[in-house]
Amino acid sequence: MTTKAYGAHAGDQPLEPMDIIRRAVGAHDVRIDIAYCGLCHSDIHQVRSEWAGTQYPCVPGHEIVGRVSAVGGDVMSFQVGDLVGVGCIVDSCKKCEDCGEGLENYCDHMVGTYNGRTPDAPGWTLGGYSQQIVVHERYVLRIRHSEDQLAAVAPLLCAGITTWSPLRHWKVGPGSKVGVVGIGGLGHMGIKLAHAMGAHVVAFTTSESKREAAKALGADEVVVSRNDDEMKVHRKSLDFILDTVAAPHDLDAFMTLLKRDGTMVLVGVPATPHPSPQVFNLVGKRRTLAGSMIGGIPETQEMLDFCAEHGIVADIEMIRADQVNEAYERMLRSDVKYRFVLENSTLGDAA
Amino acid sequence: MTTKAYGAHAGDQPLEPMDIIRRAVGAHDVRIDIAYCGLCHSDIHQVRSEWAGTQYPCVPGHEIVGRVSAVGGDVMSFQVGDLVGVGCIVDSCKKCEDCGEGLENYCDHMVGTYNGRTPDAPGWTLGGYSQQIVVHERYVLRIRHSEDQLAAVAPLLCAGITTWSPLRHWKVGPGSKVGVVGIGGLGHMGIKLAHAMGAHVVAFTTSESKREAAKALGADEVVVSRNDDEMKVHRKSLDFILDTVAAPHDLDAFMTLLKRDGTMVLVGVPATPHPSPQVFNLVGKRRTLAGSMIGGIPETQEMLDFCAEHGIVADIEMIRADQVNEAYERMLRSDVKYRFVLENSTLGDAA
Repeated sequence: MTTKAYGAHAGDQPLEPMDIIRRAVGAHDVRIDIAYCGLCHSDIHQVRSEWAGTQYPCVPGHEIVGRVSAVGGDVMSFQVGDLVGVGCIVDSCKKCEDCGEGLENYCDHMVGTYNGRTPDAPGWTLGGYSQQIVVHERYVLRIRHSEDQLAAVAPLLCAGITTWSPLRHWKVGPGSKVGVVGIGGLGHMGIKLAHAMGAHVVAFTTSESKREAAKALGADEVVVSRNDDEMKVHRKSLDFILDTVAAPHDLDAFMTLLKRDGTMVLVGVPATPHPSPQVFNLVGKRRTLAGSMIGGIPETQEMLDFCAEHGIVADIEMIRADQVNEAYERMLRSDVKYRFVLENSTLGDAA
Repeated sequence: MTTKAYGAHAGDQPLEPMDIIRRAVGAHDVRIDIAYCGLCHSDIHQVRSEWAGTQYPCVPGHEIVGRVSAVGGDVMSFQVGDLVGVGCIVDSCKKCEDCGEGLENYCDHMVGTYNGRTPDAPGWTLGGYSQQIVVHERYVLRIRHSEDQLAAVAPLLCAGITTWSPLRHWKVGPGSKVGVVGIGGLGHMGIKLAHAMGAHVVAFTTSESKREAAKALGADEVVVSRNDDEMKVHRKSLDFILDTVAAPHDLDAFMTLLKRDGTMVLVGVPATPHPSPQVFNLVGKRRTLAGSMIGGIPETQEMLDFCAEHGIVADIEMIRADQVNEAYERMLRSDVKYRFVLENSTLGDAA
């Protein structure tokens, strides 16, 4: 079936209205009428061909929420009318150790929600800037928030799980002193989640102007990282640092804030490498530098349920389809608090 | 009291015989007649002023074994005649969290066996290239090997514990597939220990000529790391990598051999940084890069007891005091299998 979408025909062209085809609903498939879709920095990288291998037309979007409009004959867990979400993953091998442990995000054959290889036309996946999507039930998440929160739930599907997964994996909780570096789409979720997990949260920003906003998000302390004196106060005191900044930056400034056995986790991949971290900062206190990528399906459900229970959603600014290109420009200037969300019903108007 | 030693008066001078003073035996002190002392790369760095802050005269040596010749009035655990060892640590604050957990190696006030600050004359510690040393009982290790193994036990006090500590901390054991990078003083101990712990050991060397030797040490497989095809075989298969190479090198070549959630631990600190590791190799499989420094006193005792039980010692080449300078040159050419050990009785001949 045909559905309205917004995408680009080439890396140097703006996004524009287009019609795309969704596959027929298979036995294990769920068809979703998409209500909202968050805008993620990855969308820009992919659609502008800043990452290798973008196929065109490219329809981005992997922070998808909406309502089930059809289910396949073998689908037991969802029915028409359910509020559901889809994140960054729409398929995987379902057989490997990673899939077996519910860490489909690390499966070698994980299929991204857009630009992933698929037998469906046109041969690569097309994402959530569209009015409908058909996804295997394994990759569909239940949303227990109230319907009026739905738009603000969308960013949980990528920004939420990407920060939740490492916080949980490294056992952040009451008694932890946690740093969150960068207060953007990911960082603002990291602060909210770490705070709700019971940690003492220290937010790090380069911008004096974000100090009050970070506190409002749940940070117990805010440090302007350009200020050496403020940084020094926290030397060797943090159990865990979640670094959400994808631009190349000095990791040592943060590594030295970790306690013995502390861990800093990178969730952003810079286009060019960070300056090489000092080995002595690792060796001298048995510190750890790690990475984490999105999260698996079961933990995404766990995160959504936790957020519903704790009343956590993203802070968003809603846009119409014809504002996507402008929103991208504003994202590149960090001019958004903290996530744009597309109102997918406007895809019809745009066309 | 005066004791014969071997040390340097300046960074650009060879080591030579000298007399040094040891403090009187205090209530908690143990005096040791040193039988053997291993030669560690750190000795060269420190005595040649390649690390900051070397005080002269400098007497290196922190792989010390010998026999107790006197004990203070409050010493309960040791008596005259006991076989004992001293490693890299002769004092620490004894009050901090690290000391409380027996991780004196991470104490901010840890005092190294040489070139560490001390109230004793001359104001800095003097190491094991000497006939006697006086050490607080807390930092003295019991040796349960037989006396004929004593010389080959010496390197366990630094090379042994430096590899043991991370292998234990990251829970290497039966079922683990472990890489050991570099087959020198540290690496040869890493192979022996990981093998004895029950791991499947893959040794990595740049040198085709070390292949058979690595197998003899206990490696199940040996990979010449310059050979891409050999490296590829192990992609995403290792649980843990112990990287003993202090020279700057490409970490990514090894990071990509780790499984999801695998850890690579650096125990060598290069003089200039390694090329910056690719963030994607961390993020894509939730891999970890960590560091580890020596080990604490309780785990050093545990390692010595394990080695005594399993008949593990270092592979050594014994030297006289007047061969120390020549041995340093050979160490710099990696021309030693795998550790030089000084026969301290020859310090008298040299003087």
